[in-house]
Amino acid sequence: MQNPDRQSGLPAGQLRSFVERIERLEEEKTSIGADIKEVYAEAKAHGFDTKIMRKVIGLRKKDRAEREEEDTILDLYMHALGMVPEQAAPDD
Amino acid sequence: MQNPDRQSGLPAGQLRSFVERIERLEEEKTSIGADIKEVYAEAKAHGFDTKIMRKVIGLRKKDRAEREEEDTILDLYMHALGMVPEQAAPDD
Amino acid sequence: MQNPDRQSGLPAGQLRSFVERIERLEEEKTSIGADIKEVYAEAKAHGFDTKIMRKVIGLRKKDRAEREEEDTILDLYMHALGMVPEQAAPDD
Amino acid sequence: MQNPDRQSGLPAGQLRSFVERIERLEEEKTSIGADIKEVYAEAKAHGFDTKIMRKVIGLRKKDRAEREEEDTILDLYMHALGMVPEQAAPDD
Repeated sequence: MQNPDRQSGLPAGQLRSFVERIERLEEEKTSIGADIKEVYAEAKAHGFDTKIMRKVIGLRKKDRAEREEEDTILDLYMHALGMVPEQAAPDD
Repeated sequence: MQNPDRQSGLPAGQLRSFVERIERLEEEKTSIGADIKEVYAEAKAHGFDTKIMRKVIGLRKKDRAEREEEDTILDLYMHALGMVPEQAAPDD
Repeated sequence: MQNPDRQSGLPAGQLRSFVERIERLEEEKTSIGADIKEVYAEAKAHGFDTKIMRKVIGLRKKDRAEREEEDTILDLYMHALGMVPEQAAPDD
Repeated sequence: MQNPDRQSGLPAGQLRSFVERIERLEEEKTSIGADIKEVYAEAKAHGFDTKIMRKVIGLRKKDRAEREEEDTILDLYMHALGMVPEQAAPDD
């Protein structure tokens, strides 16, 4: 730590700099969060389904093999739980 | 409010009863959360994929028509974004 | 795993039991969450400040020594950052 | 919507641009989140208590009058619940 201030016994300058750096970054993060909301609102206004957009953006973080493996297991589980009509099963 | 206590100026008994009711409920909620984690751990030990189980449990909250509509739009968006190999397209 | 079902290749019964146990527990957890909200609403109707109630409930999870230590450091930091008027400083 | 593509029936270009804008913003947001973590780690390495720093940063979002009002009510509630030793009560 820098030399502590006489009154608070803390290096106030150093504390202030850390606090203000964090506050600036948090402000930037909040404003980007608002920008993201705006783009979704714009997409919605253009007729896109934002809930599905979020799903697609989530899926794009995975490579195709990972997606396909998850789909296969999901399909298996949904069949096992009777959530998929028998005749519509993809591998029939 | 009940008649306030002389010292704190607040109906301490009433405040305490609300606080303790909330604490008991929060304790119950935490313990059920732990139970849920245990069941997932048990399922995992039995070879099930808990990430996919969570997905299935989420899907079971929607009726089939809703699920199928979402799948259709998702498929449409994934095609539009080239995330699905052309020949594997379901309607080919 | 139990012996897998012929059709899904999965022990569907076992999967269903895990899924249904989790669903029942999640339902219980949701209903307790609603009960907690109700108690806060009741307290609010009785004139209590629910934001401060939440703070008190959080503080009650810590013992007095821990609370007092945190208060001391917090006070130190607030002084160092000029957030406390000098004359009102508690140790003057 | 722009004119839909022949194959997907969707304005793929428009969807892609919304998705990619969101992905870029989310990337920026994640990286700023990492920067914030770094500053806290730096502050910790300099001997500061990061939990209390977070509290101070939260308090700095409120003006002094709001902080003092909350402190007064909190003190009242803690007294009413016997969380503050009687002799240490501020107005004794």
